[in-house]
Amino acid sequence: MNLLLLEDGDFIAEDRVRLSGRRLKHMLEVQQVAPGDSLRVGRLNGLMGSGQVLQLDTEQAELSISLDQAPPAKLPLTLLLALPRPKMLKRVLQTVSSMGVQRLILLNSYRVEKSFWQTPFLTPEAIREQLILGLEQARDTVLPEVIIEKRFKPFVEDRLPALAAGTLGLVGHPGDYPSCPRVVEQAVTLAIGPEGGWIPYEVEKLAEAGLQPVQLGARILRVETAVTALLARLF
Amino acid sequence: MNLLLLEDGDFIAEDRVRLSGRRLKHMLEVQQVAPGDSLRVGRLNGLMGSGQVLQLDTEQAELSISLDQAPPAKLPLTLLLALPRPKMLKRVLQTVSSMGVQRLILLNSYRVEKSFWQTPFLTPEAIREQLILGLEQARDTVLPEVIIEKRFKPFVEDRLPALAAGTLGLVGHPGDYPSCPRVVEQAVTLAIGPEGGWIPYEVEKLAEAGLQPVQLGARILRVETAVTALLARLF
Repeated sequence: MNLLLLEDGDFIAEDRVRLSGRRLKHMLEVQQVAPGDSLRVGRLNGLMGSGQVLQLDTEQAELSISLDQAPPAKLPLTLLLALPRPKMLKRVLQTVSSMGVQRLILLNSYRVEKSFWQTPFLTPEAIREQLILGLEQARDTVLPEVIIEKRFKPFVEDRLPALAAGTLGLVGHPGDYPSCPRVVEQAVTLAIGPEGGWIPYEVEKLAEAGLQPVQLGARILRVETAVTALLARLF
Repeated sequence: MNLLLLEDGDFIAEDRVRLSGRRLKHMLEVQQVAPGDSLRVGRLNGLMGSGQVLQLDTEQAELSISLDQAPPAKLPLTLLLALPRPKMLKRVLQTVSSMGVQRLILLNSYRVEKSFWQTPFLTPEAIREQLILGLEQARDTVLPEVIIEKRFKPFVEDRLPALAAGTLGLVGHPGDYPSCPRVVEQAVTLAIGPEGGWIPYEVEKLAEAGLQPVQLGARILRVETAVTALLARLF
């Protein structure tokens, strides 16, 4: 936790918060905070700044808060991700959040196992939990937007063309395609497939919607690694 | 597993292997292979090609092997990594292996908890197991070299200058430093710190050994994500 992230419900006055639970535990056990100590804090979807510990015990902590700093800019990116397996999903959500992705769309694909859609990690609360861990890691306060699209074809045919309009549209896909571009200046819509990749029909449909296939070399990377590598290259 | 990786002990003739255990299980349960099927194979530290399943049952599989393809090139990179916590270590080893790092040095640092050095994941067998999973993922056959250095100062003072000589030496470190360069042509020696980062003394010692600090923006990334992002940017 590199940033103590505060929610509206934590504020007991305009410049004062009271914390308990996970964040208090982290302050006590990992950071070993004492009264008087100053911590880096941020308000969810708001500014960042510092918090001074006024008092703390095993039940709660009270901090005086001063917020004056904008969070880091988001990447101008809509990331379409074929729904990963549950264990990978948790990590990918953290990665996406910590790298500053603006909007994530979790999409079905032929190679997404049907059981993946049943995971409890897809509830709004579970998604939010992982996104917040990513923000705390990266020192950001702004949650990415997450959209779930269980049906590939209607989404890609009916909604994706408008979403991708005016952006650089890309599909990460191994094969005889141009290399993924570097350091682009414009907004990007990037689709990354499941383990085993998109099927040819899906690559075609994504191309019809304005997303052109690009590759990242001969090595096949895990989804989480591919996401990070493509983002680090594009921005 | 995107590549069935074969070891010398698997060969019962020059062009024939017999497999059991983990790889057989994967062929049966995940890939659902049948006699006559063709699989992508590689020989550890050797060539890649294809294997045809001659027979298989729940005890063993026999394949006829043809190898004619070079594995993908390694990145000309020596990666110095402050020893991550055991759970992260496993994943980082896979990532390093799948991204094609040539040499990995696991190093001590002030912020590496002493207990991390006690993990069973640091035995040669455990390290090799994770590296092999990375090679199978990425379709590579060549194990990276892994060196363990438990003492920061003697390594950085006595051995690092010679290792880094003639390479672009970099330390990933947040702060008011130049951005990490992109698409370098030369060999690189890159040091990545622990959670919480290198301490100033360590950054100084690494700089004296020829490694200059570079940063990757305001966001603090987990070690595994930082490794991938820096490599994707450099190469």
